[in-house]
Amino acid sequence: MNQQELETFLISIRRHLHQFPELSNQEFETSKSIEKWLKELDIPIRKTTLKTGVFADIKGGKPGPIVAIRADIDALPIEEKTGLPYASKIKGVMHACGHDFHTAALVGAAYLLKKNQSNLNGTVRLIFQPAEELGGGAKHVIEDGQLEEVEAIIGLHNKPGLPVGTIGIKEGPLMAAVDRFQIILHGKGSHAALPQNGKDPIVAAAQLITAIQTIVSRNVSPLQSAVVSVTKIIGGSTWNVIPGNISLEGTVRTFDPIIREEVKTRLYTIVNAIAAAFSQEAEINWFSGPPPLVNHTSVTEIVSTAAKEQSLNVIHPESSTAGEDFSYYLLDIPGTFAFFGTNGQEDWHHPEFTVDETSIIKAAYFLYGSARELLDLQIAR
Amino acid sequence: MNQQELETFLISIRRHLHQFPELSNQEFETSKSIEKWLKELDIPIRKTTLKTGVFADIKGGKPGPIVAIRADIDALPIEEKTGLPYASKIKGVMHACGHDFHTAALVGAAYLLKKNQSNLNGTVRLIFQPAEELGGGAKHVIEDGQLEEVEAIIGLHNKPGLPVGTIGIKEGPLMAAVDRFQIILHGKGSHAALPQNGKDPIVAAAQLITAIQTIVSRNVSPLQSAVVSVTKIIGGSTWNVIPGNISLEGTVRTFDPIIREEVKTRLYTIVNAIAAAFSQEAEINWFSGPPPLVNHTSVTEIVSTAAKEQSLNVIHPESSTAGEDFSYYLLDIPGTFAFFGTNGQEDWHHPEFTVDETSIIKAAYFLYGSARELLDLQIAR
Amino acid sequence: MNQQELETFLISIRRHLHQFPELSNQEFETSKSIEKWLKELDIPIRKTTLKTGVFADIKGGKPGPIVAIRADIDALPIEEKTGLPYASKIKGVMHACGHDFHTAALVGAAYLLKKNQSNLNGTVRLIFQPAEELGGGAKHVIEDGQLEEVEAIIGLHNKPGLPVGTIGIKEGPLMAAVDRFQIILHGKGSHAALPQNGKDPIVAAAQLITAIQTIVSRNVSPLQSAVVSVTKIIGGSTWNVIPGNISLEGTVRTFDPIIREEVKTRLYTIVNAIAAAFSQEAEINWFSGPPPLVNHTSVTEIVSTAAKEQSLNVIHPESSTAGEDFSYYLLDIPGTFAFFGTNGQEDWHHPEFTVDETSIIKAAYFLYGSARELLDLQIAR
Amino acid sequence: MNQQELETFLISIRRHLHQFPELSNQEFETSKSIEKWLKELDIPIRKTTLKTGVFADIKGGKPGPIVAIRADIDALPIEEKTGLPYASKIKGVMHACGHDFHTAALVGAAYLLKKNQSNLNGTVRLIFQPAEELGGGAKHVIEDGQLEEVEAIIGLHNKPGLPVGTIGIKEGPLMAAVDRFQIILHGKGSHAALPQNGKDPIVAAAQLITAIQTIVSRNVSPLQSAVVSVTKIIGGSTWNVIPGNISLEGTVRTFDPIIREEVKTRLYTIVNAIAAAFSQEAEINWFSGPPPLVNHTSVTEIVSTAAKEQSLNVIHPESSTAGEDFSYYLLDIPGTFAFFGTNGQEDWHHPEFTVDETSIIKAAYFLYGSARELLDLQIAR
Repeated sequence: MNQQELETFLISIRRHLHQFPELSNQEFETSKSIEKWLKELDIPIRKTTLKTGVFADIKGGKPGPIVAIRADIDALPIEEKTGLPYASKIKGVMHACGHDFHTAALVGAAYLLKKNQSNLNGTVRLIFQPAEELGGGAKHVIEDGQLEEVEAIIGLHNKPGLPVGTIGIKEGPLMAAVDRFQIILHGKGSHAALPQNGKDPIVAAAQLITAIQTIVSRNVSPLQSAVVSVTKIIGGSTWNVIPGNISLEGTVRTFDPIIREEVKTRLYTIVNAIAAAFSQEAEINWFSGPPPLVNHTSVTEIVSTAAKEQSLNVIHPESSTAGEDFSYYLLDIPGTFAFFGTNGQEDWHHPEFTVDETSIIKAAYFLYGSARELLDLQIAR
Repeated sequence: MNQQELETFLISIRRHLHQFPELSNQEFETSKSIEKWLKELDIPIRKTTLKTGVFADIKGGKPGPIVAIRADIDALPIEEKTGLPYASKIKGVMHACGHDFHTAALVGAAYLLKKNQSNLNGTVRLIFQPAEELGGGAKHVIEDGQLEEVEAIIGLHNKPGLPVGTIGIKEGPLMAAVDRFQIILHGKGSHAALPQNGKDPIVAAAQLITAIQTIVSRNVSPLQSAVVSVTKIIGGSTWNVIPGNISLEGTVRTFDPIIREEVKTRLYTIVNAIAAAFSQEAEINWFSGPPPLVNHTSVTEIVSTAAKEQSLNVIHPESSTAGEDFSYYLLDIPGTFAFFGTNGQEDWHHPEFTVDETSIIKAAYFLYGSARELLDLQIAR
Repeated sequence: MNQQELETFLISIRRHLHQFPELSNQEFETSKSIEKWLKELDIPIRKTTLKTGVFADIKGGKPGPIVAIRADIDALPIEEKTGLPYASKIKGVMHACGHDFHTAALVGAAYLLKKNQSNLNGTVRLIFQPAEELGGGAKHVIEDGQLEEVEAIIGLHNKPGLPVGTIGIKEGPLMAAVDRFQIILHGKGSHAALPQNGKDPIVAAAQLITAIQTIVSRNVSPLQSAVVSVTKIIGGSTWNVIPGNISLEGTVRTFDPIIREEVKTRLYTIVNAIAAAFSQEAEINWFSGPPPLVNHTSVTEIVSTAAKEQSLNVIHPESSTAGEDFSYYLLDIPGTFAFFGTNGQEDWHHPEFTVDETSIIKAAYFLYGSARELLDLQIAR
Repeated sequence: MNQQELETFLISIRRHLHQFPELSNQEFETSKSIEKWLKELDIPIRKTTLKTGVFADIKGGKPGPIVAIRADIDALPIEEKTGLPYASKIKGVMHACGHDFHTAALVGAAYLLKKNQSNLNGTVRLIFQPAEELGGGAKHVIEDGQLEEVEAIIGLHNKPGLPVGTIGIKEGPLMAAVDRFQIILHGKGSHAALPQNGKDPIVAAAQLITAIQTIVSRNVSPLQSAVVSVTKIIGGSTWNVIPGNISLEGTVRTFDPIIREEVKTRLYTIVNAIAAAFSQEAEINWFSGPPPLVNHTSVTEIVSTAAKEQSLNVIHPESSTAGEDFSYYLLDIPGTFAFFGTNGQEDWHHPEFTVDETSIIKAAYFLYGSARELLDLQIAR
């Protein structure tokens, strides 16, 4: 394929995936399609115990380390409203985060690597990862051994806010740790006209939400970042009865493990103390999500150089308070994660989310070039 | 009928009503039964435009004023859990406030008045009122003209907290004005990690609930009574999205028209101001219920004397923050409303609510005796 | 003295006291004057270990119980602004609560009792009590044994809100228990720009004050009375340093011992819990004042009858959330305390407080008449 | 002087200044001393209309731009507690922010520049600025015309947290905008037992402080920095009177003009709305301090190079939420401000603040070297 043909091919791949999105851990057809495309390229598939996801090695003609490129492949439970001719044909499921773009770009990189296989100074491993949206896919890929012996890993995410041709690359924290919490206050119900006979959980919850605001305003350095949002509150069923309990949900976002722990500790302290103030029994559930995504300096610099060689406009992006389970890989392996401009009108997870398809082939070349640069420099852990 | 036979009759009436409870404004079979019992007593029914409720006059042998006795006849949407042999046969409907007791007692009073008709110094009007639980039945009875020319009115409510044979009679405020409110705060939703892009309605509602507490703690005289309860709060649907709005419900109870208005004014002021503080659009709906029930001195004193003559133990009851639409009658006509001891284990509106049936005939005699005393004294407006 | 002369005498006494007011426990000249007036009436003074206050017995010609009449004699640290010709000559001290009125009235009653001494069915003890404003005078009088063998006690307070000739008499709670509290939150100071290095006590205090509002709004029955007011808050010394601690003061008013204890318990719970929520050390000091003043039924009814015999207009007054250490006497001895109309323009403790002096002789007769009625009925404990 | 002699000289200068500190706008003796040292170096003083501060030009032997070096010279109203032999001899005044260090270093740079005058490619202007601590000195220097024709400006601040030999240099925001606010809530006082007669400002202030927390927690992006601290609250004078008003003070710190304006707007909105909720009249005073200090990229890079040439360890420092009126210069003129390691034990404004004096000569060489580099590169606006 010449470059024009390759671009057409990658766009067709992306559109196919876009029409048939699959939710996390259910990427069965998606995985089959990826396997098919890799086999057509004569790239051998690695064994896996995972039900979805595809892993493959392109072993270069020269000795060298193993470098991994990762794309995530799952879609979201969102009803597409783009009106595109190739919009999702699966009701209530949509590639609203552009993982179809990531997948197509990685297939493109695979094609380019395969074409240059004899000149590769080592091996490139392709990671088509499932279940990124659940935040657990990356952990399962690691547990499955797919990262063994890998000495560097790269990945990217489309970025609607950046124009096509621009890439955001930055060492250090790029995306947030994403934790979730549930709180139930168990008070005591009573007739609305007899509050003294109960232990009003609604009043307690109001004070609690107010108190929680002080974690960010008082306990986190203004030079650090944290978000604590209560996003859901449900209590009571009618107008003349004070309910017996109330439930709250929310999320915490942080970029630093110490801040993360401090925020969690403060949240527990406040919940328990406010509950005590208002005679409530407090129940707290904390669900730890992926850690902050922290790019490694060495790989980030190499990838930045590779990006410039591809004539991409390299900028230092602002961090994002969204999360990304690529962060699990970076706990173990040097690597970097980049934001790739796609000129979208709406941000991730929006029913009208789109990407500019002219960016796909650029992403493919960027991944290809970065992997080669890493191999050429014989990057070692 | 001798007294024993009368008691047996009234208990049978009460049990019949208890087995076939009907919701407010749907008291069709109940009304038919009452009409039947009155016709058997040869008491003529008054015309009415209302679909439910029964009204009748017992015109005495001597001239005199018209005095009304009122019983309410509707039941509640509560599933009975008493396990009684004569428990409700209507699923999800129960005489959980004892209006069956009130109705049976008024039939008993009608029997006694009819028996002594020739000696009555005026007319006694029987008011079997529908829809007390909705708080609107009394207004419709007044609009229907059933209270025209009535110069005094009496009524009672069973009281589980008092033993059989004890009656609570008190001039002045006895039961509360019962108002209901709904508040919706319209903010702006956002990703939970990007609170700065939204206008968080949950944080606003928390401050609002907290601020509302000051109405009772700061704006109402400690020597006056008021309750403001937020009883329901619903906002948000998931853990990682700040919702666009939140809704609250609750109730206000007061005993004094000035306090009632002051509390309402403060509530509106606080809602609108807190909404402004947090960039919310506030929507408030206020549903005025019955006014406070305020017993008139003259009728109360006469009824108190009558109660003592019936060997009842007369006490000064504590007021109740519950409401009662009998209060509408008392805006126009001198009258009094009493709490009648029924020795129940659970309070009104509880699925295990019961009354001691030996109290029914006592209530019948009390209503009869009170009406006669009022006629004898030629009570005038 | 005829009645006209007596009135002139009592007004002169009151004006003398008004010109030379003395603070609590410093009523030296006041006590000397009272002793002088009693000696002129040939009334023997009782021994006392107290430095101020005067106690005396008028032993009747017939046997009978001992009944006490009490007046308080101390003034307040307020600068008088009435502009009256007989205004206070002591800078910064004023009879702004009308204890001069009480004292003159009791001297008047002493005169009348002495005049009728031979007909008295028992003994009347005169209690000119010091230090009511501090809330401790009554306790010292009791400890001094001045109430031994007393079988009933009466007292009164001038009431600016009532016209001359009207008296407020009521059984049960009339005046509040008055407790005082101090709270210090010890946090940790920091630069205002580095809140994360400190433990902000101002934010903690704000949440605390807000939480305290719920004691009255949620924990006290709307049919009961309580006040919790934070009246003073002091924290911080400049604009760019978060202080290390903050102090609050305030008061609690209640009419019922159980509510009093419940409010105190809730206050401690809330203070300690909110402190824990915001990492503060909390220090609470509670200063119990006089208990609620609760009039006894029997004595109240007798005094009410006596008041009517004096042609006073007897009304049921609203209770007052102010306190009165007469309540200590009522813990031990049957008695009653009345509000005596003086038609003032400003309430107690105001620099322009006045009383209508035509009320003094009425108060003297009321006290005299009430004491006689109690003796005549041989009131026993 | 050789380097050893120069160091000894500069330390003696610093110690002299340290012993005789002068408050902002009162640096009379300080200015005289500086003038004397410059005259000894044969450096001509510039005319000024300011009462304090010294300005001088060292005109190089070759043509070129004018580059300014600035040191601030004022001390603080702090009682020194270092116990040093050369501690402050002025009671209650101390060089607790190390401006004596800055001044000595600039004298040192002047010496080195003068010595190399013939080789300078342009002019170096010395700015010994008064009144930095008040935040207004820099503005007056600009108004006085001392910066006219200056094409680049540099300055430094000693940094206790960095070791001697380390310098913090960073483009972009380095120090915060420092604004101050005062709020008075005018409610209505009342007896503590009669809150319904007043408009409690303490309860209003508590809600206000709580609401203010949401500015940082909800309205500022977690990736941006802001501090809003209420640092002082004064209300009430005794335990039984609710006061009529309450006053608060505090500060706002931001690094971005848009965030600064947004925070101010939110503060005003919240104050006015919460005041409305609690029937208070709100009075807000806002005192704008210096803008955020934002270093220019070009000068920063040049100075960073110069620092490395001086064998300094250049690091990227964390920003500081403290303020610095050097920011005013940077609004008009390209420049940079650096943090210079002095190995102190306590931070700025502490009574035990110290600097390691071996750092002075390093700072002199750094300023000298940077100015020369800027001249050599003919830096233009």
